[in-house]
Amino acid sequence: MSDLPNGKFITLEGGEGVGKSTNLRFITQWLTEQGIPFIQTREPGGTPLAEQLRNLLLEKREEGVDPTAELLMVFAARAQHLQRVILPALAEGKWVICDRFTDATYAYQGGGRELDSNLIAQLEQTVQGDLRPDQVLLLDVDPEIGLQRAASTGEADRFESEQIHFFNKVRAAYLDRAHSDPDRYAVIDASVPLEQVQENLAVALGKIASAL
Amino acid sequence: MSDLPNGKFITLEGGEGVGKSTNLRFITQWLTEQGIPFIQTREPGGTPLAEQLRNLLLEKREEGVDPTAELLMVFAARAQHLQRVILPALAEGKWVICDRFTDATYAYQGGGRELDSNLIAQLEQTVQGDLRPDQVLLLDVDPEIGLQRAASTGEADRFESEQIHFFNKVRAAYLDRAHSDPDRYAVIDASVPLEQVQENLAVALGKIASAL
Ligand SMILES: Nc1ncnc2c1ncn2[C@@H]1O[C@H](COP(=O)(O)OP(=O)(O)OP(=O)(O)O)[C@@H](O)[C@H]1O
Ligand SMILES: Nc1ncnc2c1ncn2[C@@H]1O[C@H](COP(=O)(O)OP(=O)(O)OP(=O)(O)O)[C@@H](O)[C@H]1O
Ligand SMILES: [Mg+2]
Ligand SMILES: [Mg+2]
Repeated sequence: MSDLPNGKFITLEGGEGVGKSTNLRFITQWLTEQGIPFIQTREPGGTPLAEQLRNLLLEKREEGVDPTAELLMVFAARAQHLQRVILPALAEGKWVICDRFTDATYAYQGGGRELDSNLIAQLEQTVQGDLRPDQVLLLDVDPEIGLQRAASTGEADRFESEQIHFFNKVRAAYLDRAHSDPDRYAVIDASVPLEQVQENLAVALGKIASAL
Repeated sequence: MSDLPNGKFITLEGGEGVGKSTNLRFITQWLTEQGIPFIQTREPGGTPLAEQLRNLLLEKREEGVDPTAELLMVFAARAQHLQRVILPALAEGKWVICDRFTDATYAYQGGGRELDSNLIAQLEQTVQGDLRPDQVLLLDVDPEIGLQRAASTGEADRFESEQIHFFNKVRAAYLDRAHSDPDRYAVIDASVPLEQVQENLAVALGKIASAL
Protein backbone atom coordinates (compact mmCIF):
# COMPACT_ATOMS: atom_id res chain seq x y z
CA MET A 1 0.00 0.00 0.00
CA SER A 2 2.58 2.55 1.12
CA ASP A 3 4.62 1.91 -2.09
CA LEU A 4 1.80 3.43 -4.13
CA PRO A 5 2.54 6.96 -5.33
CA ASN A 6 0.00 9.47 -4.09
CA GLY A 7 -2.60 10.50 -6.63
CA LYS A 8 -2.56 13.99 -8.13
CA PHE A 9 -4.71 16.68 -6.58
CA ILE A 10 -6.21 18.86 -9.32
CA THR A 11 -8.55 21.76 -8.64
CA LEU A 12 -10.76 23.63 -11.06
CA GLU A 13 -11.18 27.30 -10.25
CA GLY A 14 -12.76 30.47 -11.59
CA GLY A 15 -15.59 32.91 -11.01
CA GLU A 16 -19.31 32.34 -11.53
CA GLY A 17 -20.29 30.65 -14.79
CA VAL A 18 -16.77 30.32 -16.23
CA GLY A 19 -17.58 26.68 -16.98
CA LYS A 20 -16.10 24.72 -14.06
CA SER A 21 -18.91 22.18 -13.81
CA THR A 22 -19.18 21.80 -17.59
CA ASN A 23 -15.46 21.21 -18.01
CA LEU A 24 -15.30 18.87 -15.04
CA ARG A 25 -17.28 16.43 -17.15
CA PHE A 26 -14.69 16.77 -19.93
CA ILE A 27 -11.82 16.20 -17.50
CA THR A 28 -13.31 13.08 -15.95
CA GLN A 29 -13.94 11.70 -19.45
CA TRP A 30 -10.30 12.37 -20.33
CA LEU A 31 -9.09 10.59 -17.18
CA THR A 32 -11.35 7.62 -17.89
CA GLU A 33 -9.93 7.35 -21.43
CA GLN A 34 -6.38 7.44 -20.02
CA GLY A 35 -7.25 4.73 -17.48
CA ILE A 36 -6.29 7.00 -14.57
CA PRO A 37 -8.22 6.19 -11.36
CA PHE A 38 -9.85 9.28 -9.88
CA ILE A 39 -12.63 10.70 -7.77
CA GLN A 40 -14.61 13.83 -8.59
CA THR A 41 -15.74 16.14 -5.83
CA ARG A 42 -16.47 19.78 -5.02
CA GLU A 43 -16.18 22.53 -2.43
CA PRO A 44 -17.74 23.67 -0.31
CA GLY A 45 -19.10 20.16 0.07
CA GLY A 46 -18.02 16.64 -0.70
CA THR A 47 -19.33 14.93 2.47
CA PRO A 48 -22.83 14.98 4.01
CA LEU A 49 -21.78 17.45 6.74
CA ALA A 50 -19.78 19.59 4.33
CA GLU A 51 -22.74 19.70 1.92
CA GLN A 52 -24.96 20.88 4.79
CA LEU A 53 -22.42 23.64 5.44
CA ARG A 54 -22.50 24.46 1.71
CA ASN A 55 -26.27 24.91 1.92
CA LEU A 56 -25.91 27.27 4.88
CA LEU A 57 -23.25 29.24 2.98
CA LEU A 58 -25.19 29.58 -0.29
CA GLU A 59 -28.68 30.13 1.13
CA LYS A 60 -29.91 33.69 0.72
CA ARG A 61 -30.88 35.05 4.13
CA GLU A 62 -32.25 38.16 5.83
CA GLU A 63 -29.41 38.02 8.33
CA GLY A 64 -26.17 39.66 7.18
CA VAL A 65 -23.38 37.09 7.32
CA ASP A 66 -20.21 38.11 9.14
CA PRO A 67 -17.26 37.62 6.72
CA THR A 68 -15.15 35.84 9.37
CA ALA A 69 -18.05 33.49 10.13
CA GLU A 70 -18.29 32.75 6.39
CA LEU A 71 -14.54 32.08 6.21
CA LEU A 72 -14.62 29.70 9.18
CA MET A 73 -17.57 27.79 7.73
CA VAL A 74 -15.66 27.35 4.47
CA PHE A 75 -12.63 25.95 6.30
CA ALA A 76 -14.79 23.77 8.56
CA ALA A 77 -16.30 22.14 5.47
CA ARG A 78 -12.79 21.84 4.00
CA ALA A 79 -11.35 20.11 7.08
CA GLN A 80 -14.14 17.55 6.97
CA HIS A 81 -13.82 17.02 3.20
CA LEU A 82 -10.06 16.67 3.37
CA GLN A 83 -9.96 14.17 6.22
CA ARG A 84 -12.88 12.05 5.08
CA VAL A 85 -12.56 12.12 1.28
CA ILE A 86 -9.57 13.84 -0.33
CA LEU A 87 -6.66 12.51 1.72
CA PRO A 88 -7.91 8.89 1.72
CA ALA A 89 -8.36 8.99 -2.08
CA LEU A 90 -4.88 10.46 -2.69
CA ALA A 91 -3.39 7.85 -0.36
CA GLU A 92 -5.03 5.13 -2.50
CA GLY A 93 -3.22 6.56 -5.53
CA LYS A 94 -6.34 8.14 -7.01
CA TRP A 95 -6.42 11.53 -8.63
CA VAL A 96 -8.77 13.96 -6.96
CA ILE A 97 -10.56 16.41 -9.24
CA CYS A 98 -12.18 19.12 -7.17
CA ASP A 99 -14.58 21.86 -8.32
CA ARG A 100 -13.16 24.78 -6.27
CA PHE A 101 -10.77 24.60 -3.31
CA THR A 102 -8.70 27.04 -1.25
CA ASP A 103 -7.89 29.34 -4.17
CA ALA A 104 -11.61 30.12 -4.19
CA THR A 105 -11.29 31.17 -0.55
CA TYR A 106 -8.44 33.55 -1.38
CA ALA A 107 -10.49 34.86 -4.31
CA TYR A 108 -13.97 35.17 -2.72
CA GLN A 109 -13.31 35.74 0.99
CA GLY A 110 -9.92 37.40 0.45
CA GLY A 111 -10.43 39.31 -2.84
CA GLY A 112 -14.21 39.69 -2.78
CA ARG A 113 -14.86 40.21 0.93
CA GLU A 114 -11.44 41.80 1.50
CA LEU A 115 -10.53 39.58 4.47
CA ASP A 116 -6.83 39.55 5.42
CA SER A 117 -5.03 36.96 3.31
CA ASN A 118 -2.69 36.23 6.25
CA LEU A 119 -5.70 34.96 8.18
CA ILE A 120 -6.64 32.76 5.23
CA ALA A 121 -3.07 31.47 5.02
CA GLN A 122 -3.11 30.68 8.74
CA LEU A 123 -6.33 28.67 8.44
CA GLU A 124 -5.01 26.97 5.30
CA GLN A 125 -1.99 25.80 7.29
CA THR A 126 -4.14 24.67 10.22
CA VAL A 127 -6.53 22.67 8.06
CA GLN A 128 -4.27 21.45 5.25
CA GLY A 129 -0.83 21.29 6.78
CA ASP A 130 1.46 21.24 3.74
CA LEU A 131 -1.13 19.89 1.31
CA ARG A 132 -1.64 22.13 -1.73
CA PRO A 133 -3.19 21.22 -5.10
CA ASP A 134 -0.62 19.76 -7.50
CA GLN A 135 -2.23 21.73 -10.28
CA VAL A 136 -4.83 24.48 -10.34
CA LEU A 137 -6.76 24.85 -13.59
CA LEU A 138 -8.00 28.43 -13.54
CA LEU A 139 -10.76 29.19 -16.02
CA ASP A 140 -10.68 32.90 -16.68
CA VAL A 141 -13.28 35.12 -18.27
CA ASP A 142 -14.64 38.63 -17.81
CA PRO A 143 -17.24 38.42 -15.00
CA GLU A 144 -19.82 40.12 -17.23
CA ILE A 145 -19.72 37.08 -19.49
CA GLY A 146 -19.53 34.55 -16.65
CA LEU A 147 -22.54 36.05 -14.88
CA GLN A 148 -24.56 36.00 -18.09
CA ARG A 149 -23.76 32.31 -18.48
CA ALA A 150 -24.54 31.57 -14.83
CA ALA A 151 -27.85 33.47 -15.04
CA SER A 152 -29.11 30.83 -17.47
CA THR A 153 -28.66 28.04 -14.88
CA GLY A 154 -31.28 28.83 -12.22
CA GLU A 155 -31.88 31.25 -9.37
CA ALA A 156 -28.92 33.26 -7.98
CA ASP A 157 -27.48 32.06 -4.64
CA ARG A 158 -26.01 34.32 -1.92
CA PHE A 159 -22.70 34.71 -3.79
CA GLU A 160 -24.18 35.04 -7.27
CA SER A 161 -26.29 37.90 -5.90
CA GLU A 162 -23.20 40.07 -5.37
CA GLN A 163 -22.46 43.08 -7.60
CA ILE A 164 -20.04 43.12 -10.55
CA HIS A 165 -17.45 45.01 -8.46
CA PHE A 166 -17.26 41.97 -6.16
CA PHE A 167 -16.61 39.59 -9.07
CA ASN A 168 -13.95 41.85 -10.54
CA LYS A 169 -12.11 41.63 -7.21
CA VAL A 170 -12.55 37.85 -7.22
CA ARG A 171 -11.07 37.60 -10.70
CA ALA A 172 -8.14 39.86 -9.85
CA ALA A 173 -7.32 37.78 -6.75
CA TYR A 174 -7.39 34.55 -8.78
CA LEU A 175 -5.08 36.00 -11.45
CA ASP A 176 -2.72 37.38 -8.80
CA ARG A 177 -2.28 33.95 -7.30
CA ALA A 178 -1.83 32.31 -10.69
CA HIS A 179 0.85 34.80 -11.71
CA SER A 180 2.76 34.32 -8.49
CA ASP A 181 3.25 30.59 -9.14
CA PRO A 182 3.03 29.87 -12.90
CA ASP A 183 4.16 26.23 -12.57
CA ARG A 184 1.31 25.23 -10.35
CA TYR A 185 -1.41 27.27 -12.10
CA ALA A 186 -2.66 26.92 -15.66
CA VAL A 187 -4.71 29.95 -16.67
CA ILE A 188 -7.16 28.91 -19.35
CA ASP A 189 -9.05 31.47 -21.41
CA ALA A 190 -12.72 30.60 -20.92
CA SER A 191 -14.10 33.28 -23.24
CA VAL A 192 -13.49 31.13 -26.31
CA PRO A 193 -15.83 28.34 -27.53
CA LEU A 194 -16.01 25.28 -25.32
CA GLU A 195 -14.11 23.04 -27.79
CA GLN A 196 -11.11 25.36 -27.64
CA VAL A 197 -11.27 25.54 -23.83
CA GLN A 198 -11.20 21.77 -23.77
CA GLU A 199 -8.28 21.49 -26.20
CA ASN A 200 -6.31 23.67 -23.78
CA LEU A 201 -7.47 21.63 -20.80
CA ALA A 202 -6.30 18.43 -22.53
CA VAL A 203 -2.85 19.97 -23.02
CA ALA A 204 -2.66 20.95 -19.34
CA LEU A 205 -3.81 17.49 -18.22
CA GLY A 206 -1.32 15.77 -20.52
CA LYS A 207 1.51 17.72 -18.89
CA ILE A 208 0.41 16.68 -15.39
CA ALA A 209 0.07 13.02 -16.40
CA SER A 210 3.48 12.98 -18.09
CA ALA A 211 5.10 14.45 -14.96
CA LEU A 212 4.19 11.24 -13.06
CA MET B 1 -24.55 57.02 23.34
CA SER B 2 -20.78 56.66 23.60
CA ASP B 3 -20.89 57.90 27.22
CA LEU B 4 -22.83 54.80 28.21
CA PRO B 5 -20.69 52.23 30.03
CA ASN B 6 -20.56 48.89 28.26
CA GLY B 7 -22.78 46.22 29.75
CA LYS B 8 -21.26 43.26 31.58
CA PHE B 9 -20.64 40.06 29.69
CA ILE B 10 -21.48 37.07 31.92
CA THR B 11 -21.20 33.47 30.79
CA LEU B 12 -22.59 30.36 32.42
CA GLU B 13 -20.44 27.28 31.99
CA GLY B 14 -20.20 23.67 33.03
CA GLY B 15 -20.58 20.13 31.74
CA GLU B 16 -23.78 18.33 30.75
CA GLY B 17 -26.69 18.67 33.17
CA VAL B 18 -24.91 20.84 35.75
CA GLY B 19 -27.91 23.16 35.69
CA LYS B 20 -26.91 25.96 33.30
CA SER B 21 -30.31 26.38 31.70
CA THR B 22 -32.16 26.04 35.02
CA ASN B 23 -29.99 28.65 36.72
CA LEU B 24 -30.15 30.99 33.76
CA ARG B 25 -33.80 31.53 34.64
CA PHE B 26 -32.77 32.41 38.21
CA ILE B 27 -30.13 34.84 36.97
CA THR B 28 -32.45 36.67 34.59
CA GLN B 29 -35.03 36.97 37.37
CA TRP B 30 -32.36 38.44 39.65
CA LEU B 31 -31.35 40.98 36.98
CA THR B 32 -34.97 41.96 36.41
CA GLU B 33 -35.44 42.55 40.14
CA GLN B 34 -32.31 44.73 40.21
CA GLY B 35 -33.56 46.71 37.22
CA ILE B 36 -30.47 45.84 35.19
CA PRO B 37 -31.12 45.78 31.42
CA PHE B 38 -29.92 42.52 29.84
CA ILE B 39 -30.27 40.02 27.02
CA GLN B 40 -30.17 36.26 27.43
CA THR B 41 -28.59 34.10 24.77
CA ARG B 42 -26.68 30.86 24.22
CA GLU B 43 -23.87 29.17 22.31
CA PRO B 44 -23.51 27.62 19.93
CA GLY B 45 -26.42 29.67 18.61
CA GLY B 46 -28.01 33.02 19.27
CA THR B 47 -28.75 34.04 15.65
CA PRO B 48 -30.65 32.15 12.93
CA LEU B 49 -27.42 31.14 11.12
CA ALA B 50 -25.63 30.28 14.38
CA GLU B 51 -28.60 28.15 15.48
CA GLN B 52 -28.41 26.28 12.16
CA LEU B 53 -24.74 25.63 12.88
CA ARG B 54 -25.71 24.46 16.38
CA ASN B 55 -28.08 21.93 14.82
CA LEU B 56 -25.32 20.62 12.55
CA LEU B 57 -22.97 20.36 15.55
CA LEU B 58 -25.40 18.53 17.86
CA GLU B 59 -27.03 16.22 15.31
CA LYS B 60 -25.98 12.61 15.70
CA ARG B 61 -24.60 11.39 12.37
CA GLU B 62 -23.11 8.31 10.70
CA GLU B 63 -20.20 10.41 9.45
CA GLY B 64 -17.36 10.85 11.94
CA VAL B 65 -16.82 14.58 12.51
CA ASP B 66 -13.26 15.85 12.19
CA PRO B 67 -12.35 17.67 15.45
CA THR B 68 -10.89 20.65 13.58
CA ALA B 69 -14.06 20.93 11.49
CA GLU B 70 -16.07 20.92 14.73
CA LEU B 71 -13.84 23.61 16.22
CA LEU B 72 -14.17 25.86 13.16
CA MET B 73 -17.96 25.47 13.13
CA VAL B 74 -18.07 26.53 16.79
CA PHE B 75 -16.03 29.65 16.07
CA ALA B 76 -18.02 30.42 12.89
CA ALA B 77 -21.21 30.44 14.96
CA ARG B 78 -19.43 32.55 17.60
CA ALA B 79 -18.24 35.17 15.09
CA GLN B 80 -21.79 35.57 13.81
CA HIS B 81 -23.29 35.70 17.31
CA LEU B 82 -20.74 38.20 18.54
CA GLN B 83 -21.05 40.62 15.63
CA ARG B 84 -24.83 40.46 15.31
CA VAL B 85 -25.99 40.11 18.92
CA ILE B 86 -23.45 40.28 21.75
CA LEU B 87 -21.37 43.32 20.79
CA PRO B 88 -24.39 45.47 19.87
CA ALA B 89 -26.09 44.63 23.20
CA LEU B 90 -22.96 45.43 25.25
CA ALA B 91 -22.54 48.70 23.35
CA GLU B 92 -26.11 49.64 24.34
CA GLY B 93 -25.13 49.14 27.98
CA LYS B 94 -27.00 45.87 28.37
CA TRP B 95 -25.67 42.90 30.28
CA VAL B 96 -25.30 39.79 28.15
CA ILE B 97 -26.01 36.49 29.90
CA CYS B 98 -24.80 33.65 27.73
CA ASP B 99 -25.35 29.89 28.25
CA ARG B 100 -21.84 28.66 27.27
CA PHE B 101 -19.12 30.58 25.42
CA THR B 102 -15.41 30.12 24.63
CA ASP B 103 -14.60 28.37 27.90
CA ALA B 104 -16.81 25.56 26.61
CA THR B 105 -14.59 25.38 23.53
CA TYR B 106 -11.46 25.04 25.67
CA ALA B 107 -13.27 22.41 27.75
CA TYR B 108 -14.99 20.33 25.03
CA GLN B 109 -12.79 20.73 21.94
CA GLY B 110 -9.59 21.32 23.95
CA GLY B 111 -10.07 19.08 27.00
CA GLY B 112 -12.54 16.56 25.58
CA ARG B 113 -11.29 16.24 21.99
CA GLU B 114 -7.70 17.06 22.97
CA LEU B 115 -7.22 19.74 20.30
CA ASP B 116 -4.24 22.06 20.81
CA SER B 117 -5.25 24.92 23.09
CA ASN B 118 -2.90 27.24 21.18
CA LEU B 119 -5.07 26.74 18.12
CA ILE B 120 -8.15 27.56 20.18
CA ALA B 121 -6.42 30.67 21.56
CA GLN B 122 -5.51 31.76 18.03
CA LEU B 123 -9.12 31.44 16.84
CA GLU B 124 -10.35 33.18 20.00
CA GLN B 125 -8.11 36.14 19.16
CA THR B 126 -9.23 36.16 15.51
CA VAL B 127 -12.92 36.07 16.33
CA GLN B 128 -13.09 38.01 19.60
CA GLY B 129 -10.13 40.36 19.48
CA ASP B 130 -9.65 41.34 23.13
CA LEU B 131 -13.22 40.59 24.21
CA ARG B 132 -13.43 38.11 27.09
CA PRO B 133 -16.34 37.51 29.49
CA ASP B 134 -16.26 39.87 32.47
CA GLN B 135 -17.29 36.98 34.68
CA VAL B 136 -17.57 33.25 34.10
CA LEU B 137 -19.96 31.41 36.39
CA LEU B 138 -18.73 27.82 36.35
CA LEU B 139 -21.19 25.28 37.69
CA ASP B 140 -19.20 22.29 38.79
CA VAL B 141 -20.36 18.77 39.57
CA ASP B 142 -19.09 15.23 39.08
CA PRO B 143 -20.03 14.22 35.49
CA GLU B 144 -21.72 11.06 36.80
CA ILE B 145 -24.29 13.27 38.51
CA GLY B 146 -24.57 15.76 35.66
CA LEU B 147 -25.17 13.03 33.10
CA GLN B 148 -27.86 11.48 35.28
CA ARG B 149 -29.61 14.84 35.46
CA ALA B 150 -29.22 15.43 31.70
CA ALA B 151 -30.55 11.94 30.92
CA SER B 152 -33.92 13.00 32.33
CA THR B 153 -34.26 15.83 29.77
CA GLY B 154 -34.68 14.03 26.44
CA GLU B 155 -32.59 12.11 23.90
CA ALA B 156 -28.80 12.42 24.01
CA ASP B 157 -27.23 14.65 21.34
CA ARG B 158 -23.82 14.06 19.67
CA PHE B 159 -21.91 15.43 22.68
CA GLU B 160 -24.09 13.87 25.36
CA SER B 161 -23.41 10.51 23.67
CA GLU B 162 -19.71 10.66 24.62
CA GLN B 163 -18.27 8.40 27.35
CA ILE B 164 -17.61 9.40 30.97
CA HIS B 165 -13.86 9.70 30.26
CA PHE B 166 -14.65 12.54 27.83
CA PHE B 167 -16.66 14.43 30.44
CA ASN B 168 -13.99 14.00 33.08
CA LYS B 169 -11.54 15.68 30.69
CA VAL B 170 -14.09 18.45 30.04
CA ARG B 171 -14.48 19.07 33.77
CA ALA B 172 -10.72 19.10 34.38
CA ALA B 173 -10.20 21.64 31.57
CA TYR B 174 -12.91 23.91 33.00
CA LEU B 175 -11.41 23.77 36.50
CA ASP B 176 -7.91 24.40 35.14
CA ARG B 177 -9.04 27.59 33.48
CA ALA B 178 -10.95 28.72 36.56
CA HIS B 179 -7.96 28.17 38.83
CA SER B 180 -5.64 30.09 36.52
CA ASP B 181 -7.74 33.28 36.81
CA PRO B 182 -9.73 33.24 40.09
CA ASP B 183 -10.93 36.84 39.76
CA ARG B 184 -12.73 36.26 36.51
CA TYR B 185 -14.15 32.81 37.35
CA ALA B 186 -16.58 31.90 40.11
CA VAL B 187 -16.66 28.14 40.64
CA ILE B 188 -20.04 27.19 42.07
CA ASP B 189 -20.65 23.77 43.57
CA ALA B 190 -23.61 22.37 41.63
CA SER B 191 -23.89 19.12 43.59
CA VAL B 192 -25.88 20.80 46.36
CA PRO B 193 -29.65 21.51 46.24
CA LEU B 194 -30.75 24.13 43.75
CA GLU B 195 -31.63 26.72 46.43
CA GLN B 196 -28.05 26.63 47.72
CA VAL B 197 -26.63 26.90 44.19
CA GLN B 198 -28.78 29.96 43.67
CA GLU B 199 -27.77 31.57 46.95
CA ASN B 200 -24.16 31.30 45.78
CA LEU B 201 -25.06 32.64 42.35
CA ALA B 202 -26.75 35.65 43.95
CA VAL B 203 -23.56 36.40 45.90
CA ALA B 204 -21.47 36.20 42.72
CA LEU B 205 -23.91 38.43 40.82
CA GLY B 206 -23.99 40.95 43.66
CA LYS B 207 -20.19 41.27 43.47
CA ILE B 208 -20.28 41.91 39.72
CA ALA B 209 -23.05 44.51 40.04
CA SER B 210 -21.26 46.32 42.88
CA ALA B 211 -18.07 46.51 40.82
CA LEU B 212 -19.89 48.78 38.33
N1 LIG C 1 -16.61 28.34 -23.20
C1 LIG C 1 -17.94 28.49 -23.10
N2 LIG C 1 -18.62 29.16 -24.04
C2 LIG C 1 -19.94 29.34 -23.94
N3 LIG C 1 -20.71 28.86 -22.92
C3 LIG C 1 -20.08 28.19 -21.95
C4 LIG C 1 -18.68 27.96 -22.00
N4 LIG C 1 -18.34 27.24 -20.89
C5 LIG C 1 -19.48 27.03 -20.20
N5 LIG C 1 -20.54 27.59 -20.85
C6 LIG C 1 -21.95 27.59 -20.39
O1 LIG C 1 -22.03 28.51 -19.27
C7 LIG C 1 -22.98 28.03 -18.33
C8 LIG C 1 -22.30 27.94 -16.96
O2 LIG C 1 -21.34 26.87 -16.98
P1 LIG C 1 -21.01 26.05 -15.66
O3 LIG C 1 -22.24 25.77 -14.89
O4 LIG C 1 -20.15 24.92 -16.08
O5 LIG C 1 -20.13 27.14 -14.92
P2 LIG C 1 -19.55 27.06 -13.44
O6 LIG C 1 -18.21 27.68 -13.53
O7 LIG C 1 -19.65 25.69 -12.92
O8 LIG C 1 -20.55 28.03 -12.68
P3 LIG C 1 -20.79 28.14 -11.10
O9 LIG C 1 -19.73 29.07 -10.62
O10 LIG C 1 -22.17 28.75 -11.03
O11 LIG C 1 -20.70 26.75 -10.53
C9 LIG C 1 -23.47 26.71 -18.84
O12 LIG C 1 -24.71 26.93 -19.47
C10 LIG C 1 -22.42 26.27 -19.84
O13 LIG C 1 -22.94 25.47 -20.87
N1 LIG D 1 -28.57 21.60 41.97
C1 LIG D 1 -29.40 20.72 41.41
N2 LIG D 1 -29.83 19.64 42.10
C2 LIG D 1 -30.64 18.75 41.53
N3 LIG D 1 -31.08 18.82 40.26
C3 LIG D 1 -30.68 19.86 39.52
C4 LIG D 1 -29.83 20.86 40.05
N4 LIG D 1 -29.58 21.77 39.07
C5 LIG D 1 -30.27 21.34 38.00
N5 LIG D 1 -30.95 20.20 38.25
C6 LIG D 1 -31.77 19.43 37.33
O1 LIG D 1 -30.89 18.79 36.39
C7 LIG D 1 -31.49 18.74 35.10
C8 LIG D 1 -30.54 19.38 34.08
O2 LIG D 1 -30.50 20.79 34.33
P1 LIG D 1 -30.26 21.82 33.14
O3 LIG D 1 -31.03 21.41 31.92
O4 LIG D 1 -30.47 23.18 33.68
O5 LIG D 1 -28.71 21.56 32.90
P2 LIG D 1 -27.78 22.16 31.75
O6 LIG D 1 -26.47 22.44 32.40
O7 LIG D 1 -28.45 23.27 31.04
O8 LIG D 1 -27.65 20.90 30.81
P3 LIG D 1 -27.16 20.86 29.26
O9 LIG D 1 -25.67 20.80 29.36
O10 LIG D 1 -27.77 19.59 28.76
O11 LIG D 1 -27.70 22.09 28.61
C9 LIG D 1 -32.82 19.43 35.20
O12 LIG D 1 -33.81 18.46 35.35
C10 LIG D 1 -32.70 20.29 36.46
O13 LIG D 1 -33.93 20.49 37.10
MG1 LIG E 1 -20.47 24.92 -11.15
MG1 LIG F 1 -28.84 23.62 29.02
